[in-house]
Amino acid sequence: MTMNATGGRRRPPTIHDVAREAGVSRGTVSRVLNGGHYVSPSAQEAVNAAIRKTGYVVNRHARSLITGRSDSVGFLLTEPQERFFEDPNFNVLLRGCTQALAAHDIPLLLMLAGTPDERRRIMRYITAGHVDGVLLVSSHSGDPVADELRDAGVPLVACGKPIGQASKVSYVAADDRDGARDMVRHLLSLGRRRIGTVTGPLDTPGGVDRLAGYREILAEEGITVDERLIASGDYSRAGGEAAATRLLAQAPDLDAVFVASDLMAQGVLTALDRADRRVPQDIAVGGFDDSPAALTARPELTTVRQPWDRISAEMVRVLLAQIGGEDPAAVILPTELVIRGSA
Amino acid sequence: MTMNATGGRRRPPTIHDVAREAGVSRGTVSRVLNGGHYVSPSAQEAVNAAIRKTGYVVNRHARSLITGRSDSVGFLLTEPQERFFEDPNFNVLLRGCTQALAAHDIPLLLMLAGTPDERRRIMRYITAGHVDGVLLVSSHSGDPVADELRDAGVPLVACGKPIGQASKVSYVAADDRDGARDMVRHLLSLGRRRIGTVTGPLDTPGGVDRLAGYREILAEEGITVDERLIASGDYSRAGGEAAATRLLAQAPDLDAVFVASDLMAQGVLTALDRADRRVPQDIAVGGFDDSPAALTARPELTTVRQPWDRISAEMVRVLLAQIGGEDPAAVILPTELVIRGSA
Repeated sequence: MTMNATGGRRRPPTIHDVAREAGVSRGTVSRVLNGGHYVSPSAQEAVNAAIRKTGYVVNRHARSLITGRSDSVGFLLTEPQERFFEDPNFNVLLRGCTQALAAHDIPLLLMLAGTPDERRRIMRYITAGHVDGVLLVSSHSGDPVADELRDAGVPLVACGKPIGQASKVSYVAADDRDGARDMVRHLLSLGRRRIGTVTGPLDTPGGVDRLAGYREILAEEGITVDERLIASGDYSRAGGEAAATRLLAQAPDLDAVFVASDLMAQGVLTALDRADRRVPQDIAVGGFDDSPAALTARPELTTVRQPWDRISAEMVRVLLAQIGGEDPAAVILPTELVIRGSA
Repeated sequence: MTMNATGGRRRPPTIHDVAREAGVSRGTVSRVLNGGHYVSPSAQEAVNAAIRKTGYVVNRHARSLITGRSDSVGFLLTEPQERFFEDPNFNVLLRGCTQALAAHDIPLLLMLAGTPDERRRIMRYITAGHVDGVLLVSSHSGDPVADELRDAGVPLVACGKPIGQASKVSYVAADDRDGARDMVRHLLSLGRRRIGTVTGPLDTPGGVDRLAGYREILAEEGITVDERLIASGDYSRAGGEAAATRLLAQAPDLDAVFVASDLMAQGVLTALDRADRRVPQDIAVGGFDDSPAALTARPELTTVRQPWDRISAEMVRVLLAQIGGEDPAAVILPTELVIRGSA
């Protein structure tokens, strides 16, 4: 909070206070608040810091009376409700988006639509104008929601590249292929040569691109890919366990597994434990996500960190820009290899 | 789906089909669809069965153009986001409410508002008319949300009795006191005499009323309540673990514990295991909820079943009735003792 010039009485900070603190014009602050288009990254940084320092809060209610907007954003998950509660990635992403929106004083509405009927009802609600835009968390191809929202003119940012729609729909994604390459390169550096993989669903970008990274590195090292070393999973713990059981049956000489999500890797650990294979001594296990599941696993997972904070912040930034009139954009963010006990 | 009289072509079922199937008038069907006031339970039952059988779906969009309503309902959780993901009760309740609303073709918007700022933003959204009513899941007293919603004229049904506001706010609750009585009576029937309890927060009805039931039964049996046998928890797993550790220190001769939630009981089991106390041989453990946590516990929990399906169905029924103009109502539903391995 700022103090006003005449003494100790507090008054709410204004956009002028933010501009003065940031050393930029009022127009620049306004553009940042409306999504940050036509603002340099350094000015955006300065304005966000000034907003935090002054405690400035947009008078969103006054604005929405003028703009006719709902001044709210939907977080739409087109997965079964169970997946939402099982996979800690969603919790992390939801919190990040909630916080990024809080800086703009915009509430987030959570919409779970795992069935066609639920999607139909939620689409009706969204297209009636009750939210200004949608953060879409739905990785499967063939999901019609992204198309429907786009056709209805609803501003939209997907988490992960929507397969087949990438040029028309905004999305924010980690660099899945590069992250997978880092992990497989790491497993090779440990001397492992019979490296299997448990993929995500192959109608999801995380499924396709992480498998592609795995194949690329093996090819670059002159190792012929043995298809018996590839098993597909569904991003659930149980799916990872089943996939690892198949891998062990098909390739008993397996000495490492790259698993396309930490939650599936927990299931892989369960299957290996049941088969009396020690991790990492007998079989090294690498995950993907660096979600809370990586730290509750035993041993803790060596994994590929998705930059969730940046992903959620960028999703919100791109969405607000689109609500403000910008064209769609794609943002790809680098991952980071995190070494722990499992590989 | 029904077939029409002239042959195989399907047409969408109408309200007339539902009325014919249920053997009631069209007006009765309409009253059920608008919340079920002035309809006998048996007629309501018949209409709901007929809706399921015919596959009738309300043309909600046409309605909302006429009524000016959003035709949507908010599920507002004023707890920290972590609690929502940790405690499986919320998942169960959310699914039940979603399904009960689906029969009326009404979408559910999930609102997580664990901080004062989040509550302020969500209140602004709700009072702007973006939802027609609110299912409130917030058990702590002193939570201003119920008062604020009531004062703003927003139809509202709380899950659990809102402390201090019971006469003005609709709520649906299990019979906490009676459920606790059943459990403690069961522990006594096993021959246990040093029965402790881990309570819920004492500013929540589940905290207060389950403790009251515990005290009542002991008093009725002529057993003086030893205050060292009472430890308070916060409905989290970690809180249950900490409370059990305190109980063991204060009353090493403990031979049973009634725990006011299944999730806390999981923490109690962890603490007892660490102290090398066998369950149920050394210490019997009884939970409350019959949530999925009861089945993942080892041993599986003997517990008090909250009738979640009925609770969610009644919350939706009472809310729709209020949206239709009815006065508030309270609904108390009986619990059921479920015997498994822990007591």
